[in-house]
Amino acid sequence: MTIAILLHEGMTASDATGPYEALRSIPGATVKFVAETPGPKRMDSGFLTLVADYGIDEVSHPDVLVVCAGSPVVPPGERVLSWIQTAHETSQWTTSVCAGTLLLGAAGLLQGVRATTHWPVMDMLASFGAIACPQERYVHDGKIITSAGNSAGIDMALYLTAQIAGDEIAEATQLLMGYDPQPPFDSGSPTKASPQVIKLAQSFMQNWIASELAKYEQLS
Amino acid sequence: MTIAILLHEGMTASDATGPYEALRSIPGATVKFVAETPGPKRMDSGFLTLVADYGIDEVSHPDVLVVCAGSPVVPPGERVLSWIQTAHETSQWTTSVCAGTLLLGAAGLLQGVRATTHWPVMDMLASFGAIACPQERYVHDGKIITSAGNSAGIDMALYLTAQIAGDEIAEATQLLMGYDPQPPFDSGSPTKASPQVIKLAQSFMQNWIASELAKYEQLS
Repeated sequence: MTIAILLHEGMTASDATGPYEALRSIPGATVKFVAETPGPKRMDSGFLTLVADYGIDEVSHPDVLVVCAGSPVVPPGERVLSWIQTAHETSQWTTSVCAGTLLLGAAGLLQGVRATTHWPVMDMLASFGAIACPQERYVHDGKIITSAGNSAGIDMALYLTAQIAGDEIAEATQLLMGYDPQPPFDSGSPTKASPQVIKLAQSFMQNWIASELAKYEQLS
Repeated sequence: MTIAILLHEGMTASDATGPYEALRSIPGATVKFVAETPGPKRMDSGFLTLVADYGIDEVSHPDVLVVCAGSPVVPPGERVLSWIQTAHETSQWTTSVCAGTLLLGAAGLLQGVRATTHWPVMDMLASFGAIACPQERYVHDGKIITSAGNSAGIDMALYLTAQIAGDEIAEATQLLMGYDPQPPFDSGSPTKASPQVIKLAQSFMQNWIASELAKYEQLS
């Protein structure tokens, strides 16, 4: 079984690394990190580089497709969307993490599909014909599974592991990951965080998007 | 503030990526991925490569030190242990994830210190003079914070973010990460998993160690 995880320049690392760490334990699975162009990809923080071993053209028909979000400033182009469409035609499972769900939408895969994404972009789901499920951590509809903000990819991937390989292997994977989460705060979703914390998180996002935009304008 | 995260060949990726994703949001923080030799490091699965931008000699005095576990087959050598010792002398915080705690122990930093680590190696803490706290997700003792199996690094790093930058910033970071964990199973620690699941996880680990050993023997 081939699992393709889509990397982009300027992405959030844990969109990819969270699901990877669970899915890679599926017996017989090969995980291939792919990108429009293979090679090193600098993550959004500027501090970390992940390597895409394969170009998307080299992995046309993965059994499992994990679509991560791209940079909000330079969204992935037509070649990537067309790869997602083709891969989805033959995939057993098509999944997304965080704003990666918007790429499934842009590829035309979410018409009438129940889906979720990162909370700041939840409203955009409707424009793709998707039925937004903002209260759910991950949403399974047909062979599509979408997930919420980046760390939700871990929960989604454990669920998917169980679908593919059975509950016992998924539970053993959770045990090997020591995934017994005990966050010191309970502010992981906008329904739980205080108004000040939501405002602060929004300002962090705006600052980050502005700095990405400035970098991009300097380059072009 | 400089945060150094120690990478190794053959390590588990999320030992590093989990804490990174939280700590990188600390205002003014620079995260530096370091390794004994800088460059690309292949993770334990063989599927993913992370890049260490810096050699350990280039980052002698980080403010925060995050020590991740190495390969169980080729443990990090004297140069790495000596770097950990030196870095700890001037660090504000010295932290570890998963079996990275054993490296703090091997560097002589855990005499009489309350600590935790990945459950399969918990018994080894005593040999370093540490006081094992197997029921805790992360343990803060003085300026040392150790954490349990790899995903515990997320919880530890959110706690540390709050110590450094205050609760509100830690909560905003949690919200940006969408870290509202809802694992589909409750088998993340050996006190919660069934005996069959523990046995399966142990067999996964043994197979992995055997295959790493075979690779190593072929190389040497």
